[in-house]
Amino acid sequence: MTDIFDKIISGEIPSYKVYEDDDVLAFLDLSQATPGHTLVIPKKHVQDIYSYDDDLSAKVLSKLPVIARAVKASNPKIIGINILSNNGAAAGQSVPHSHWHIIPRYQDDGLDLPGAVDHSDEYSPSKYEAVAKSIREQF
Amino acid sequence: MTDIFDKIISGEIPSYKVYEDDDVLAFLDLSQATPGHTLVIPKKHVQDIYSYDDDLSAKVLSKLPVIARAVKASNPKIIGINILSNNGAAAGQSVPHSHWHIIPRYQDDGLDLPGAVDHSDEYSPSKYEAVAKSIREQF
Repeated sequence: MTDIFDKIISGEIPSYKVYEDDDVLAFLDLSQATPGHTLVIPKKHVQDIYSYDDDLSAKVLSKLPVIARAVKASNPKIIGINILSNNGAAAGQSVPHSHWHIIPRYQDDGLDLPGAVDHSDEYSPSKYEAVAKSIREQF
Repeated sequence: MTDIFDKIISGEIPSYKVYEDDDVLAFLDLSQATPGHTLVIPKKHVQDIYSYDDDLSAKVLSKLPVIARAVKASNPKIIGINILSNNGAAAGQSVPHSHWHIIPRYQDDGLDLPGAVDHSDEYSPSKYEAVAKSIREQF
């Protein structure tokens, strides 16, 4: 299947590239949630986080710090970075080609902080342990 | 500096572990934004995404797909996963030890989709290009 990111990789669709090597392409997300909002994608077509083998994940994901450093260095007003990958439509994945958002943060940028939901008052030690066990058993 | 995650790694503070190897520890986030919400951390103390060298990022980040697959397999109701790392207080980082949230998603879980902000109507091609150039120059 060919998606919009495959067409960006092939050059069929132009993009504002910020980094490229044999394994990875990084380019501006047109939505620019904040200035410098960058997408990092594997050139190999993998749909989501579940689809990476160990070799591909090492090659691709090891570039996230490299690219995050460059994004941060690009603008002295950047005071933080969120890195986000959505997997599955229910998680907000809009293109079926794994991608990693690098979202620079600025003073009073108005972006909601994700992941701040806290349900710890609903969990007993035995409930935590049951959830942890259900995951441990999958390795 | 010793933070709460260093104490979890050393065992001084208990945790609901789901995976461990020489480089990585994964355990339940007590907040459980959704059931199975897991944190993945490097055992080596690095503060944030900017602090990983290439070797450490390959070792640690290549485990994200492995752990995400296990989280997904742990519960058939999981229909998506957000992976999120907050870097800097302005980005919502609460512990100064790099960590990666693996947040399972469920039907009608009520979690806001992060990263859906779109400012593309405020960007001209030349503005995109200026932003991309400012990042490219940092490599």
